[in-house]
Amino acid sequence: MIYLDSPAGVGLSYSKNVSDYVTGDLKTAADSHTFLLKWFQLYPEFLSNPFYIAGESYAGVYVPTLSHEVVKGIQGRAKPTINFKGYMVGNGVCDTVFDGNALVPFAHGMGLISEEIYQQAATTCHGNYWNASEGKCESALGKIDSLISELNIYDILEPCYHGRSIKEANPQNSKLPKSFKDLGTTNKPFPVRTRMLGRAWPLRAPVKAGRVPLWQEVASGVPCMVSSIGPWLLCTDKIDFNHDAGSMISYHKNLTSQGYRAIIFSGDHDMCVPYTGSEAWTKSMGYGVVDSWRPWFTNEQVSGYTEGYEHGLTFATIKGAGHTVPEYKPQEALAFYSRWLNGSKL
Amino acid sequence: MIYLDSPAGVGLSYSKNVSDYVTGDLKTAADSHTFLLKWFQLYPEFLSNPFYIAGESYAGVYVPTLSHEVVKGIQGRAKPTINFKGYMVGNGVCDTVFDGNALVPFAHGMGLISEEIYQQAATTCHGNYWNASEGKCESALGKIDSLISELNIYDILEPCYHGRSIKEANPQNSKLPKSFKDLGTTNKPFPVRTRMLGRAWPLRAPVKAGRVPLWQEVASGVPCMVSSIGPWLLCTDKIDFNHDAGSMISYHKNLTSQGYRAIIFSGDHDMCVPYTGSEAWTKSMGYGVVDSWRPWFTNEQVSGYTEGYEHGLTFATIKGAGHTVPEYKPQEALAFYSRWLNGSKL
Repeated sequence: MIYLDSPAGVGLSYSKNVSDYVTGDLKTAADSHTFLLKWFQLYPEFLSNPFYIAGESYAGVYVPTLSHEVVKGIQGRAKPTINFKGYMVGNGVCDTVFDGNALVPFAHGMGLISEEIYQQAATTCHGNYWNASEGKCESALGKIDSLISELNIYDILEPCYHGRSIKEANPQNSKLPKSFKDLGTTNKPFPVRTRMLGRAWPLRAPVKAGRVPLWQEVASGVPCMVSSIGPWLLCTDKIDFNHDAGSMISYHKNLTSQGYRAIIFSGDHDMCVPYTGSEAWTKSMGYGVVDSWRPWFTNEQVSGYTEGYEHGLTFATIKGAGHTVPEYKPQEALAFYSRWLNGSKL
Repeated sequence: MIYLDSPAGVGLSYSKNVSDYVTGDLKTAADSHTFLLKWFQLYPEFLSNPFYIAGESYAGVYVPTLSHEVVKGIQGRAKPTINFKGYMVGNGVCDTVFDGNALVPFAHGMGLISEEIYQQAATTCHGNYWNASEGKCESALGKIDSLISELNIYDILEPCYHGRSIKEANPQNSKLPKSFKDLGTTNKPFPVRTRMLGRAWPLRAPVKAGRVPLWQEVASGVPCMVSSIGPWLLCTDKIDFNHDAGSMISYHKNLTSQGYRAIIFSGDHDMCVPYTGSEAWTKSMGYGVVDSWRPWFTNEQVSGYTEGYEHGLTFATIKGAGHTVPEYKPQEALAFYSRWLNGSKL
């Protein structure tokens, strides 16, 4: 599994040329494709493995655009030839209209707004919630916004910390395993498999056996870089990003019609990119249904619902999960990832 | 707090006359009223306390019918005079049409059925899901039934045990406190307050200090009863029950218009008596809104939504709770019970 901080300027990805920090969807995809070609040049022993691209949230844009670059590369005989098979998108941004219209029905269905307020919005907005211009519609949407504003947008069932107390950020009642709860709060060195010795990222950087180096340790060998990169941050304003790829629907059509498999999955309690939008746009692709809407199971329990379409397109929900599915439902995520990668039905 | 096993024939309530086990809503209410009058005769020191009736699920029928009996008693100068103030109903059965039409929109809103199947049902059933006779509607409803059949009906987010393994019935991941998980599985004697000594139910039965007697110990003094009562069981087929009170809406109108306060609350992930029905019938009462739909809070977290109506009627959801709210959300339940009993806004 390759994890990539992308575009350059976020995480530990960087450019020596600051003009690269003015970027967008298309440049990010092209750069990531370049990264992949170089990575496979260095590690050709992995080229025969089936290759999948996966991501969540805004990676709803990164994944199909990068997939598109990879496919273009294969067709243009770029070397090495990546054995690309398909892609996975979780709670992914896709299309301004579909995603923009997803919130109101979601909030209604989850009981966050009343039937009456929903009807007001539906009647005055005529199903168009994303660029309302009519006064009564705007007023209904304003009411809805205020009703949901205190919720945790990434999981309506989880507490929201309102920046009030950092202690609350690790709730006793969380169902997550202890190792997950501790992520990001521990300084403990992570174990690294011995076979990765000398190969761990950053490239050819010295690695002490048994632990991943802190960036400072690696960078101490390359002093010209450390000041421009800085520490890994969750958020940065270093880059100026332009969403220049438009709707992803044409990308999905293009890729799936060429035989690349895709799974569009959604934690169904996420309010950031609600499942209602992903369900609607996958349906809108117009592909025939080959596996009708049905529950899928983990350990004999309903873990969500799925619908399978022609051209290897699968839509799936993960019941009770928020924006980042494996964080909320690790067991269920492993189950459907494994099955889908394996070519089995969910 | 008085807990009542009702009607006679369930739990530890019994009758010496087996014909009493052919019963229904109206007889149950009349019997429970008789019980209350006798209880207050024995414990007149509690008569000055404000008295509320509360229950869940089918108590959506028991609570308003008993409230009605109590109010009739007060008006007919039955002695003693019960200081009745209002009632609480959680995920309560109310009305064949409202409750019968609640499941399909609930399943749709929670993402259990697809938009397409929902539209099929909506179009072919014309909003009438409870007594479908048209073929296409019946077929859509049949499809919906099969899609949700493997879920835990009392909380769509909780596992369902399918009767496969009793061990699974106590999930490690449950958010419930240990004391709740152990309920019904421990033989440990429960502490009883000393002031209850000699007063614990069954009436005047001998009680050892500090523990509730097992029924066998109590019954050993009254051997004629033990065989007819038997142990406390979750389910019994001893009684033949007839739902003879009809819709509860007229009861609610009658009680609230006479100044008795009512809160109709609903764990919003219950599929047995979904919140969609309770929201719809409370709205249908036609009372003016005095506290518009808004979130209510516990510990600065959104715990659900509430709408307040004229005549002391409150509707409230409890976010993420199943059929029996205090079991799933004890902290939130205590918060809204306390506030409502106190006459405060939720």
